[in-house]
Amino acid sequence: MKPSIPKGTRDFSPAEMLRRNYLFGIIRTAFARFGYLPLETPSMEQLSTLMGKYGEEGDKLIFKVLDSGEFLDHADRDALAKNDSRKFAVSVAEKALRYDLTVPFARYVVMHQHEIVFPFRRYQIQPVWRADRPQKGRYREFYQCDADVIGSNSLVCESELIQLLEFVFSAIGLKVVVQLNNRKLLAGLAEVMGVPDHLTDITVAMDKLEKVGLDKVREELTAKGISAQAMTILEPVLLFKGVTNDKLAMLDSVLATSETGRKGIEEIRALFSMLSNFSFTHLSCELDLSLARGLNYYTGAIIEVKAADERSSFSSSICGGGRYDDLTGIFGLSGMSGVGISFGADRICDVMEEIGLFPESHTSAATVMAVNFDGDPDGSVAALLHRLRMAGVNAEAYPDPVKLKKQFAFADAKGIRYVIVRGDEERNSGMFNLKNLADGTQHTYTAEELIGVLVQKD
Amino acid sequence: MKPSIPKGTRDFSPAEMLRRNYLFGIIRTAFARFGYLPLETPSMEQLSTLMGKYGEEGDKLIFKVLDSGEFLDHADRDALAKNDSRKFAVSVAEKALRYDLTVPFARYVVMHQHEIVFPFRRYQIQPVWRADRPQKGRYREFYQCDADVIGSNSLVCESELIQLLEFVFSAIGLKVVVQLNNRKLLAGLAEVMGVPDHLTDITVAMDKLEKVGLDKVREELTAKGISAQAMTILEPVLLFKGVTNDKLAMLDSVLATSETGRKGIEEIRALFSMLSNFSFTHLSCELDLSLARGLNYYTGAIIEVKAADERSSFSSSICGGGRYDDLTGIFGLSGMSGVGISFGADRICDVMEEIGLFPESHTSAATVMAVNFDGDPDGSVAALLHRLRMAGVNAEAYPDPVKLKKQFAFADAKGIRYVIVRGDEERNSGMFNLKNLADGTQHTYTAEELIGVLVQKD
Repeated sequence: MKPSIPKGTRDFSPAEMLRRNYLFGIIRTAFARFGYLPLETPSMEQLSTLMGKYGEEGDKLIFKVLDSGEFLDHADRDALAKNDSRKFAVSVAEKALRYDLTVPFARYVVMHQHEIVFPFRRYQIQPVWRADRPQKGRYREFYQCDADVIGSNSLVCESELIQLLEFVFSAIGLKVVVQLNNRKLLAGLAEVMGVPDHLTDITVAMDKLEKVGLDKVREELTAKGISAQAMTILEPVLLFKGVTNDKLAMLDSVLATSETGRKGIEEIRALFSMLSNFSFTHLSCELDLSLARGLNYYTGAIIEVKAADERSSFSSSICGGGRYDDLTGIFGLSGMSGVGISFGADRICDVMEEIGLFPESHTSAATVMAVNFDGDPDGSVAALLHRLRMAGVNAEAYPDPVKLKKQFAFADAKGIRYVIVRGDEERNSGMFNLKNLADGTQHTYTAEELIGVLVQKD
Repeated sequence: MKPSIPKGTRDFSPAEMLRRNYLFGIIRTAFARFGYLPLETPSMEQLSTLMGKYGEEGDKLIFKVLDSGEFLDHADRDALAKNDSRKFAVSVAEKALRYDLTVPFARYVVMHQHEIVFPFRRYQIQPVWRADRPQKGRYREFYQCDADVIGSNSLVCESELIQLLEFVFSAIGLKVVVQLNNRKLLAGLAEVMGVPDHLTDITVAMDKLEKVGLDKVREELTAKGISAQAMTILEPVLLFKGVTNDKLAMLDSVLATSETGRKGIEEIRALFSMLSNFSFTHLSCELDLSLARGLNYYTGAIIEVKAADERSSFSSSICGGGRYDDLTGIFGLSGMSGVGISFGADRICDVMEEIGLFPESHTSAATVMAVNFDGDPDGSVAALLHRLRMAGVNAEAYPDPVKLKKQFAFADAKGIRYVIVRGDEERNSGMFNLKNLADGTQHTYTAEELIGVLVQKD
């Protein structure tokens, strides 16, 4: 039997782990720099916690975990008779793998509301699972890196999330575009179109604009019962070209009669004003009125980030987020406004890989390897390695007394920089030979001296 | 509806995460210090990869993931009719959550055997899942921290794993006992007892000795067909009291006629001899002949670690491992000897918590919080925070302009050490006030000076 792994999942070799840890380290540092605290939630949630939170499509993509034991005893025989897999699944799977980090966070906040000091800034870096069809940049298991602040309405939160993006992407060296919008603008638009109840239809259709084009969007909205007259208000807004200030001026006039719309304009103006105090080197912010994002829980700012490097072939978003006013309401705690951002670490890795943003010099290998010469009969090499490790040097022993050539080839292949040899000659003189594999130079040292040399190099 | 989480799983609050990260950091550093490289494998494996690898009991404890889509189309209707949950499960669940890190590692080595440079030292720190009955110190989702070296027969590997244990437990400050045994001793014993085929029965029964006592072990072995005469050879060995050298002398005589047994004695002697070169401060090693460990794949050294601190009420093992000669054989690659150790991080956390081994001084909160005074009208506080963060200081802004008392109470509750206030007076003079919450002192600084002060404190 040839072993394999489930499609859409991946093994990460040491070389890949090194790169991933480099990126995760930058993101984790950025989160801490802005006062976010770490949180972890279980991989499995109650199925009922997740179902209905991601739309009908989302429900299908949730990985369900089969109950253990004699689960057929409580299986839905009626669903079985009707061959209804979905209904049957719910009866034999009480648990499911988390689909994102936002719903578990809301669940956590509700369960721990009396211990938490609000506003609560938390970050969470964990894998999520989706039964999506695997394709380029889309995996069935992938990491999300989320930062959210809940319990504050202040636009300071939005402004700081954008600053955090700059912090991360300048550290990585990747230029990005931050597309901003505000759900209140969209709600105002639906109001002045005379179809406030169709907000969801409009945002879902607008979300597809870039992919399917205006004709298809028009078709979809007409099918949903939106009149040609209402469309005459929407279309010029969607197609408007101009800088942020021009767009806001246009909206001042289009949304003049909608209080919600005016509030949206005010929020966007205030946010852009706060951001204008910073000179970002790696991100540019733009107001994108066609930005809707599929998820329905956003109520204020909407944020999406795309790579803006011509060497990258990735057009999909690498970060996304926004403000939600009632995320915890689904679990019985209302009136908690929050805003968050999620880094798609796997996609960011793919982009960095493609355009070569990982530092070359990194190697995950130990700094030094001790050659195994006759099995270290006096234990002096083992003792030296012990002292090196205590001094903070990553050091490994070649375990078997095989040919020196093989041992050196091993060190080379792993990217180890130094090799210690203690042959008969060195043993007689109480010394150790240290060879630099990069330039081929070598010196003979006492144990003391050798430790001093390697501590400096590490 | 009141949200909850599946039994046996846990949320980790920021304060708990801080402690866990402290421990994981120590373990990760130790692994790197000995030349182990990081690896990660998917949470889900093919069910066929896992089934049959952990014994019949283990198979039942594997969490199976329900196939997505119309899985009833390929469900085993025959198993259904017979109400056979186990057989039915296999027909609708192609994937499962990993049960440990060892089998996925073996699977990885086989799949990547042509890219790997052997001997291959890898470490892996990831959660595993088991449908065990939850109880004290036993969870359904818990982390394993494994280090293995595969592709070498050398006892240097065993010796280094024990050194690694000392490295970790001395850093934590926990005294432990390392119990050592060798599967070859047990095999030799079965040989001289005249029942070499009953090795598994013997080891399974011996594994229970401490829990159930000699009578039950005798009963179980008699039921398996082991004669009273054979038992007269086994029992004195099990009950022998004495130091390691006494035990080895006793075994020299008991196992004299078994080649395998003599090899086991030789390996144990060589390992203890290598270890005698080191003066361990936090661990003592002892030969424990009743140590068998449930898993059948061990072929040489067997290692188990228990806390040896009288303040701890945990009697179960906190680390375990051993040598296996054919772990990858199950996936078609034979002749690969390896040895590994697994840290039960969750149990170690529980022990550390119980006896107070986590450093008190740690706080995960930001170093400084800026009070929100009238919403920072000139943006000068936001600009200062930006400079602080760029200088490496973790700094957060209170987002809302609420009463100062509330803001200070927030900083206190989070354990933030410094608070920046820029009221009207400071704004007029171009200064910032910095208050030390620990001792109540405060000073007024320019932005430049304040950054200098906090960079030093951080």
